[in-house]
Amino acid sequence: MKLIVVLALLATAVLAQPPQSAEQWGVFELSLRGPAGGNPFLEVQFGAEFQFQNRVVKAQGFYDGNGVYRVRFMPDAVGVWTWTTRGNRPELDGKKGQFTCTAPSKGNHGPVTVRNTRHFGYADGTPYFPVGTTCYAWAHQGDALEEQTLATLRTAPFNKMRMCVFPKDYAFNKNEPRYYPFPSDPAGRNDFTRFDPAFFRHFEKRVKDLLDLGIEADLILFHPYDRWGYKNMPAEADDRYLRYTVARLAAFRNVWWSMANEFDFMKEKKLSDWDRFFRIVQESDPYRRLRSIHNGAVLYDHAKPWVTHASIQSDEFTKTAGWLEAYSKPVIFDECKYEGNIPQRWGNISAKEMVRRFWLGTALGAYVGHGETYLHPQDILWWSKGGALHGESAPRIAFLRKILEEGPPQGLDAMPGKYPMAGVPGVYYLCFFDVHQPGEWEFDLPAGVRYQVEILDPWEMTIAPVSGTFEGKFKVKLPSRPYLVVRVRKLDSKS
Amino acid sequence: MKLIVVLALLATAVLAQPPQSAEQWGVFELSLRGPAGGNPFLEVQFGAEFQFQNRVVKAQGFYDGNGVYRVRFMPDAVGVWTWTTRGNRPELDGKKGQFTCTAPSKGNHGPVTVRNTRHFGYADGTPYFPVGTTCYAWAHQGDALEEQTLATLRTAPFNKMRMCVFPKDYAFNKNEPRYYPFPSDPAGRNDFTRFDPAFFRHFEKRVKDLLDLGIEADLILFHPYDRWGYKNMPAEADDRYLRYTVARLAAFRNVWWSMANEFDFMKEKKLSDWDRFFRIVQESDPYRRLRSIHNGAVLYDHAKPWVTHASIQSDEFTKTAGWLEAYSKPVIFDECKYEGNIPQRWGNISAKEMVRRFWLGTALGAYVGHGETYLHPQDILWWSKGGALHGESAPRIAFLRKILEEGPPQGLDAMPGKYPMAGVPGVYYLCFFDVHQPGEWEFDLPAGVRYQVEILDPWEMTIAPVSGTFEGKFKVKLPSRPYLVVRVRKLDSKS
Repeated sequence: MKLIVVLALLATAVLAQPPQSAEQWGVFELSLRGPAGGNPFLEVQFGAEFQFQNRVVKAQGFYDGNGVYRVRFMPDAVGVWTWTTRGNRPELDGKKGQFTCTAPSKGNHGPVTVRNTRHFGYADGTPYFPVGTTCYAWAHQGDALEEQTLATLRTAPFNKMRMCVFPKDYAFNKNEPRYYPFPSDPAGRNDFTRFDPAFFRHFEKRVKDLLDLGIEADLILFHPYDRWGYKNMPAEADDRYLRYTVARLAAFRNVWWSMANEFDFMKEKKLSDWDRFFRIVQESDPYRRLRSIHNGAVLYDHAKPWVTHASIQSDEFTKTAGWLEAYSKPVIFDECKYEGNIPQRWGNISAKEMVRRFWLGTALGAYVGHGETYLHPQDILWWSKGGALHGESAPRIAFLRKILEEGPPQGLDAMPGKYPMAGVPGVYYLCFFDVHQPGEWEFDLPAGVRYQVEILDPWEMTIAPVSGTFEGKFKVKLPSRPYLVVRVRKLDSKS
Repeated sequence: MKLIVVLALLATAVLAQPPQSAEQWGVFELSLRGPAGGNPFLEVQFGAEFQFQNRVVKAQGFYDGNGVYRVRFMPDAVGVWTWTTRGNRPELDGKKGQFTCTAPSKGNHGPVTVRNTRHFGYADGTPYFPVGTTCYAWAHQGDALEEQTLATLRTAPFNKMRMCVFPKDYAFNKNEPRYYPFPSDPAGRNDFTRFDPAFFRHFEKRVKDLLDLGIEADLILFHPYDRWGYKNMPAEADDRYLRYTVARLAAFRNVWWSMANEFDFMKEKKLSDWDRFFRIVQESDPYRRLRSIHNGAVLYDHAKPWVTHASIQSDEFTKTAGWLEAYSKPVIFDECKYEGNIPQRWGNISAKEMVRRFWLGTALGAYVGHGETYLHPQDILWWSKGGALHGESAPRIAFLRKILEEGPPQGLDAMPGKYPMAGVPGVYYLCFFDVHQPGEWEFDLPAGVRYQVEILDPWEMTIAPVSGTFEGKFKVKLPSRPYLVVRVRKLDSKS
């Protein structure tokens, strides 16, 4: 009898039949009806506790407009999970249910976390080598262009996308977005005490689109390129925005949090603000997604405990070893300037230089990100709006990604030597000769282990095996051309 | 009667009829017979005073073996010069004579000195833009190879040669020289109290060969690559060697003094030794030839007053502006690594990278030097032994030299801007885009002055005029290719 009453109550409060299952690392979403009056964004608290055996995970819910409250959850273990809602309104509090977490579907490897100190991996054990690109405002361009961007990404080599939550105002990007994160009055004044759910519904659809393509969404929470007032909101609005965004998006397994792009160019914020933002995101996100912050001219202290990896703007690759040592975290050169031909110095390096930087960063034990800024008659530059790729580096970056994915799953750490070289001692060596073109080069590897040697041309995307097997100290004849790579791999056979 | 006696005395003491004329900036040489016994190098002082009108210049003489004493002098003014010998032996003292200094012959522009703070010029006013190369030990290879080197230089673009006085012992250079600077006993022990004049006669012939080709001889007085004991002689021997070398060679107008190559790798010497060497050379050399010192890992303080220009080993071109500012002297990247394919990191950059460095240094207001290190079956590497050039940078360096010689005579100073640019304000601009490839670039030049614009491709060696004339703020469309140069020159016509 009591059970019937509970079910009846559920039937009225729960908007739709709650899902009875969700796959591991997928999204379980619960929707309830609640108050629509007043300002639910300020007044109503809502969330749920999800329990698996003796483990309880709390997830914040969010108001999605029209009296609808939702909570999203990413289960990380196969089996039966129960849930109990918590809220400061009776219709949102104490609802219970359960669902079955099923095995992940094909291509779902779970979220990415830091692994092996300076590298990453998916939750199912698959290694993850970030090969990212940047389309800051691609999700604010309207469906036609956004769909084109997704079509491009389908065959592009990139498995991470840096993108802004807020719309962007900058050179080559002066168009109005279709959606705005906050409602505004006819005079254009934002109401920072409310959110526009349509904006977020659209944005999270794009995050989900990336998830379906196997692309991590490196979400930039604040940025300085703004004409609408999002860069200098009151502190309460900043914090509310962070909590709301985390509540809506954290359950998507491909989400990464980047506190800001060029944080130091936002003069309205102090360093203590950034520290606070990190902590709010860290505390609100039940999954502890990856967290970073991207610099303009001044580096944030990536050694701080809430930073999971260094997301760096720089082309000073000579600093890589220092950063890897100081931070003991992965280092991603998320912006090392972009392939393109715009007048801006940061947006006009050649494709060959971009490819060079990818290999240089890799051989120094770090990761490198892509962006493209070719002049376009309609100002559709990939780095900001997405669309199509026009450059020549992307196929070469695909080649590098293939090399990484064929390599040791634990990732490549920098090794001592005269040239940038990364690998796994005794097992795998990737040596990049950059502008150097020695006619031969001597390797000094463990004796008694047999290796195979190949010469890789990163631009021509060729792999030329060197005949024979090698061990101990040996010399490899090289073509006298710059920008080559030597790959040395331990042979599988017993030695 | 008295006159006849003097002439008779002269006839016996002066070895040959003294020359009656010498051209301006040429060499006047006087030879006298003197004592051959004992140790003339230690015991006999000899020199001469040369007088032009009221000006007296003192030149040290030297013992050339077999009882022959010589003094060399470079007259720098057209007209009658008189001379008087000074010596601590009667037959070497108080001899007098005169000669006529005639106008310089074609191609003789006089010695090079620093001009316009960070640049150079010949004494006759012709600008001199150093475009140097390095063949450290070319003068110690025997006549066949040395003649081949000279034949190569005849059509090469280089107008400066870095070369060691002492023989060299180093990788790819293990052969014995034909001549040694000091006599040695059968056990191979050097007698540092004497010199072997044959060594110096041969060496100065090679310096003169360079002079005849219009090439400055940047003579390296000490270096660490030694198996004969020249790098750790007693201090008295060092000083005597310097004075003897200066006495023999200073009169050749193409001589520059480099105290050492990689001075800091000579652990036997202290910094105070180098300071002393500079002062000895400065005091002994009546012409105050250019003086520098070349570093290994540690820079000498080129701000010291006896240093005329910074001769630098580095590929850290980002430091150029700092050095130019700190020293207020010309900065020459005499070694920015070499084009080649040897295993050594400093000797295997590509031809394209070498050409890039030449233009980069130039556009930063400095000068750059060449060297070539391709593996050779007989170990004849240009950088050490000379011979033939095998690389691809030399013709492109010729192209750069032509551009420099077409440019403003006062030299190109660094200018502010987003890309390396050097020139003369209002008159001439040379902008190097390096790895950047903007599709267009805006110049902001003085209004009311008309300019012509050309796009230079340093590798293809092409000059593409941009049609039209330009003034004030104007944009130039550029091909989206890296490593291009834009040259902007004020039009001769009145504007």
